[in-house]
Amino acid sequence: MSQKNNKTEANIPQAVSAQFSEDVIEERLMPNPLSQFSMDEDALRLALITAQYALRATRQRAPTTTNEPTGVLVLVNGMEQAGKGGAVKQLREWVDPRLLKVEATVGGCPLAHQPIWQAHIKMMPRHGDVMVYFGNWYADLLYNTMRMAIAESKNTDDSSEDNEHEKAGWQAYFQQQLVKLKTFEKDLVANHTKLLKCWFHVDVETLQARLNDTEADPQFLYQIDWHSKKVIETFNAVAVTLLRQQDDWIIIDGKDKSQAANHFCHEVLQAMQNALTSSQPMTTKNETKSSSKKSKNHKSKSHKTPESAFESEKFEPVKIPTYLKDIENSKIDKADYQKALIAKQTRLAELLRARNGHQVVFAFEGMDAAGKGGAIKRLVAPLDPREYQIYNIGAPMLYEAEHPYLWRFWTKLPNQQTDRISRIAIFDRTWYGRVLVERVEGFATEKEWQRAYDEINRFEADLTAVGTIVIKYWLAIDKKEQLKRFEARKETPHKQFKLTEDDWRNRDKWSDYVQSAADMLARTDTADAPWCVVATNDKRQARLEVLDHAIKQLSAAYGL
Amino acid sequence: MSQKNNKTEANIPQAVSAQFSEDVIEERLMPNPLSQFSMDEDALRLALITAQYALRATRQRAPTTTNEPTGVLVLVNGMEQAGKGGAVKQLREWVDPRLLKVEATVGGCPLAHQPIWQAHIKMMPRHGDVMVYFGNWYADLLYNTMRMAIAESKNTDDSSEDNEHEKAGWQAYFQQQLVKLKTFEKDLVANHTKLLKCWFHVDVETLQARLNDTEADPQFLYQIDWHSKKVIETFNAVAVTLLRQQDDWIIIDGKDKSQAANHFCHEVLQAMQNALTSSQPMTTKNETKSSSKKSKNHKSKSHKTPESAFESEKFEPVKIPTYLKDIENSKIDKADYQKALIAKQTRLAELLRARNGHQVVFAFEGMDAAGKGGAIKRLVAPLDPREYQIYNIGAPMLYEAEHPYLWRFWTKLPNQQTDRISRIAIFDRTWYGRVLVERVEGFATEKEWQRAYDEINRFEADLTAVGTIVIKYWLAIDKKEQLKRFEARKETPHKQFKLTEDDWRNRDKWSDYVQSAADMLARTDTADAPWCVVATNDKRQARLEVLDHAIKQLSAAYGL
Repeated sequence: MSQKNNKTEANIPQAVSAQFSEDVIEERLMPNPLSQFSMDEDALRLALITAQYALRATRQRAPTTTNEPTGVLVLVNGMEQAGKGGAVKQLREWVDPRLLKVEATVGGCPLAHQPIWQAHIKMMPRHGDVMVYFGNWYADLLYNTMRMAIAESKNTDDSSEDNEHEKAGWQAYFQQQLVKLKTFEKDLVANHTKLLKCWFHVDVETLQARLNDTEADPQFLYQIDWHSKKVIETFNAVAVTLLRQQDDWIIIDGKDKSQAANHFCHEVLQAMQNALTSSQPMTTKNETKSSSKKSKNHKSKSHKTPESAFESEKFEPVKIPTYLKDIENSKIDKADYQKALIAKQTRLAELLRARNGHQVVFAFEGMDAAGKGGAIKRLVAPLDPREYQIYNIGAPMLYEAEHPYLWRFWTKLPNQQTDRISRIAIFDRTWYGRVLVERVEGFATEKEWQRAYDEINRFEADLTAVGTIVIKYWLAIDKKEQLKRFEARKETPHKQFKLTEDDWRNRDKWSDYVQSAADMLARTDTADAPWCVVATNDKRQARLEVLDHAIKQLSAAYGL
Repeated sequence: MSQKNNKTEANIPQAVSAQFSEDVIEERLMPNPLSQFSMDEDALRLALITAQYALRATRQRAPTTTNEPTGVLVLVNGMEQAGKGGAVKQLREWVDPRLLKVEATVGGCPLAHQPIWQAHIKMMPRHGDVMVYFGNWYADLLYNTMRMAIAESKNTDDSSEDNEHEKAGWQAYFQQQLVKLKTFEKDLVANHTKLLKCWFHVDVETLQARLNDTEADPQFLYQIDWHSKKVIETFNAVAVTLLRQQDDWIIIDGKDKSQAANHFCHEVLQAMQNALTSSQPMTTKNETKSSSKKSKNHKSKSHKTPESAFESEKFEPVKIPTYLKDIENSKIDKADYQKALIAKQTRLAELLRARNGHQVVFAFEGMDAAGKGGAIKRLVAPLDPREYQIYNIGAPMLYEAEHPYLWRFWTKLPNQQTDRISRIAIFDRTWYGRVLVERVEGFATEKEWQRAYDEINRFEADLTAVGTIVIKYWLAIDKKEQLKRFEARKETPHKQFKLTEDDWRNRDKWSDYVQSAADMLARTDTADAPWCVVATNDKRQARLEVLDHAIKQLSAAYGL
């Protein structure tokens, strides 16, 4: 497929505008049933507001609804001066503005050491809301790709006509990122955040005319000189690659701004209606897909995305491995422990401080009283509290629950945008709650937690792909040892807070949790983010092992 | 007072360390009853956790508590290598970490066009939580002051000994900012967010020894060369000014790190206990004060802060002014309106775009159906949706209600840190809800809403002081006209969503709302953020007036 695209690319600069329309726009615009634009203004406004209130009802359960909570995220991108602003303003006037959020970013270089989407993660609609998001992750990606493409074209301007080969640089980068983003978006959609992606287009002549219009405000260009023909050619080449690779963009022709606004509002209405249809619990996943706009408006190009071996099959629990049943009891002498501890802590602190911008994410899971807190305490002992963040994860807060389940973790990743010093995040309980407590307690449906293994693998892969070091522990304890620790907690006044009713309830479901842990370890032990299972019946030994594994992972990541 | 300080300052560089201890530390450390440090570790841990759970109960109302919801914010500042990190680590180990948040910033130049506190506003504990915040707004202020002081001392190094006069630059800036922050903090405390301010100190010799220790991690210095004697002298001079002007800092001697950690944990415990005491509804404000740590540990220096004419008196409602009772009905011809509208919109857009980094905040208040939405629509018509944010304010969300009532507005101010393009925030209903709906419906106590006038004035003064242009409208309508509009909404299908049960209920309390509006207009009509009362029985005329006032305010702000 990328081969084919490269060939098409090579032809483009000759007649950008014509080529763009012919190959891509026509193909997309034509199948749109024009009848859908026949709704008059009042009818459309009423329909929009009705859909908004129906969506809101999915969040509030009032009026009673059977739909699952669902939000709609509208990505607005495209060429400058193509009527995006006017279209969103029109939408805002026609809907109930309290249920519509509008956010915008300008494109910029994606931040190093974090996935492109991370900088945008705050901008997610709550379930029940519609959010229009100008710019978004695509603005960053387009900005970076344009930069590469322009740099590459400068380098080859003097040379011969082997453009095709030269373009491989930005093409390869761009297509790879597009695949990643598509996957990310797929997981958003699967988790109650429906997407509408609108690409506004105008031809070069209209663009030039509007740029010369004194009313136009040029401050929102992608920091790009749109007066340059070369630049527009490059932009269109990039845009064509985008639209060819991702067939879920709606192209909106911005030549007539009023019509573009009208088209946009109709698309948003349809997206809300589709979101409502697909959030009905009775429809199966396949039925949902066939009612979605994609298959209605476009020739269906079913891209096979790579799925893991597990996803499509019926879920088969794995056999519980021995190391989860028979926990080792090897003891270490206290003096030896103290000596080893200090040596390992010192080494780990050195490694953590030598991480050269890379971010480190620690994930601690394990049965209650397995010693997560104690292990974390030894891990951070040689560090300054300003160097790390510890997140103690419990039930989500209400506003967190109104987003995809990974959202509350996305927002807690080390982030270069905020002024936090720390680039080390330590999670005491994690996103694996989806396949542990949420599975066992039925907070997630079977479909949801079974799908979550792959979603989590993709999430971690996005992190490791940008150099984040993901270090995961399962602290294993046996049932007898747990009881001993519960009793000890009960008897130590300043430790009683650690023991709750929930702990006893969870203990009753011991075997469910062990099965869940076994399935989790089997399905999410990836090369880049492997699990470390630590036997913790002996706390000292366990703490040393935790440090050892971190040292090993960091050394490997640095190539030491 | 600043005179006296300047004199003291001039003597300091001779023997920084001794002077620092003598004048400030001794004075503060001595009265501390040493007995409070006698609690053994287990007792302290238990007391800390007990206090945490009692605080959490103020948020969750479980177990039942009569205390008002209360959070505790612990500011940690001071000299480098003074044991701050170790103290916080100690605290984290001794408490339930799920109820403790730790955040950190490094000091940097405060952002232009926003109050110093704004960059830190996300870091506020929820009611029921304790948050330890390293750096915080004081790090920014100290960074900036140090920069000024060092630049000033360089300029005068060659000249004669009139240091005293030369220091006026940073001193004046610093003291002015300290007054502002103190006021801001006072309002935090009054709104359920108690403060503990800890200043860690070590003498120069200890600092030097620790800096030369290879274990020390120098990455958290205030981007300052601590090996320079000059720098330390300046820092101490600045610190002395801070501690003299603000008597609510607890000084913690970092010479013995373990004792410092112990001292810190005791202070946090006491702060939590004081927060619990002062959040009991039966104590009057004065009783609360006398039980607080301040009067216990320090010589009480009662600073009279400037209060408005209203605050200390018994609240007297004002007489309803005529313009809120007899709404004008002047009409404008449609053609004239259209022409005037376009001219004014064009002018306003010009002015908004010429604002040169300044931020603009629009506040719209008024009775239901007074035309806020329509006025905002005409205001933004000439702008691109990416240039502004419209916030439709309703009841706070749960997590917003777990912060000071202004917090949800603080976080919505135009903010240079986030990548939002917009520097214009438009509020459709505002923080004035405190003295309108919250007063009328009893959501705020009498004390709370009566205090709010001054809090709001201070909030807006903080904004205008940094050049933000605050433009406030009260849209006035009469009761008959409102009914007409309600009926119209009822009959237009796509407008029905605008009419709710609440609107009819509010209408029943018409005179309460008019009285509240009158009081609000009388008490918050300040020179820098004046109200514009617009008669809106005629919508067209009203919309033009809204534009006129904005044009006038912006022109005045730019000195046009």
